[in-house]
Amino acid sequence: MNREEVKKWQRVCKEYLDRAGIILTPQEAGSIEIADLGLDEFEQTGLGLVVYVNTERVCAKELVLLPGQTCPQHFHPKVDDAPGKEETFRCRWGEVYLYVSGDPTPNPKAQPPAHRAANYTVWHEIVLKPGDQYTLMPETWHWFQGGPEGAVVSEFSTRSTDENDLFTDKEINRLPEIED
Amino acid sequence: MNREEVKKWQRVCKEYLDRAGIILTPQEAGSIEIADLGLDEFEQTGLGLVVYVNTERVCAKELVLLPGQTCPQHFHPKVDDAPGKEETFRCRWGEVYLYVSGDPTPNPKAQPPAHRAANYTVWHEIVLKPGDQYTLMPETWHWFQGGPEGAVVSEFSTRSTDENDLFTDKEINRLPEIED
Repeated sequence: MNREEVKKWQRVCKEYLDRAGIILTPQEAGSIEIADLGLDEFEQTGLGLVVYVNTERVCAKELVLLPGQTCPQHFHPKVDDAPGKEETFRCRWGEVYLYVSGDPTPNPKAQPPAHRAANYTVWHEIVLKPGDQYTLMPETWHWFQGGPEGAVVSEFSTRSTDENDLFTDKEINRLPEIED
Repeated sequence: MNREEVKKWQRVCKEYLDRAGIILTPQEAGSIEIADLGLDEFEQTGLGLVVYVNTERVCAKELVLLPGQTCPQHFHPKVDDAPGKEETFRCRWGEVYLYVSGDPTPNPKAQPPAHRAANYTVWHEIVLKPGDQYTLMPETWHWFQGGPEGAVVSEFSTRSTDENDLFTDKEINRLPEIED
């Protein structure tokens, strides 16, 4: 993705955060992370992120999902001696469909991008509407998708080390470089 | 405080959260914690709390402060081998005046309740408006007060163990019983 596209999606994400009533400083608004995971299919696979804090012990973020946009299947492994990342997702606006290990849900609300469907193997569905939340314990495979209007989701977690995340889809690169 | 008063303040806190655009489930709204710290001077000293999650590793809350209401000076000590609680305050609505150790600020915006002033010994001021945040490392003495319209503040932290908090004011009881 080039810088101009990043700026465009930052503006779009800011509009979603506005709808959720979430106030950012101008500096935060100008540095919303547009994560396309190196696939260059941002409207299908990816998400926007505002990282409020990420210390050795605590991390808090806002996540923005476009309508039908998918954050692909991944998990957070142990890093050295530290247990994997634990995270709570709380829906603030819109609707999000979260999938984790467990009994597959018949007729799930989300479908992953068709050309990447083979990488989606966990199908226990949790539907989160505003005020709903779900806590994922470490080393739980999971993926999630924005509903028909998209979603804004707060994430409360232990330290985030995105570079360690393991994705099912081997084409994914969590930290690609932005092109000039 | 009796149950009727608790219910009244829960409704008031819910109105502040509504203004901040924060959506609660009905169950959450009905169980907002009204912490008067055993002083029975809630409008002067205390706060409202919604605890979203509090696991072994992560805690996230919303805090509600009435206009001029003070959360009194305290710190979070080590518990067994665990380092003290680390917390980030992010203002969502209104204005909050936070005081921590360090150079005293001349002409501070807040004044603690006069009859308890002797218990307030840290005076380095941080003013937080919507979108502003501040991270407190463990074992930092701190207190804070809602501005003229009150405040809604998100707190992202490590595990919260309120029963271990140390207050300067020895009349305080963090977990008093509600009277019938």
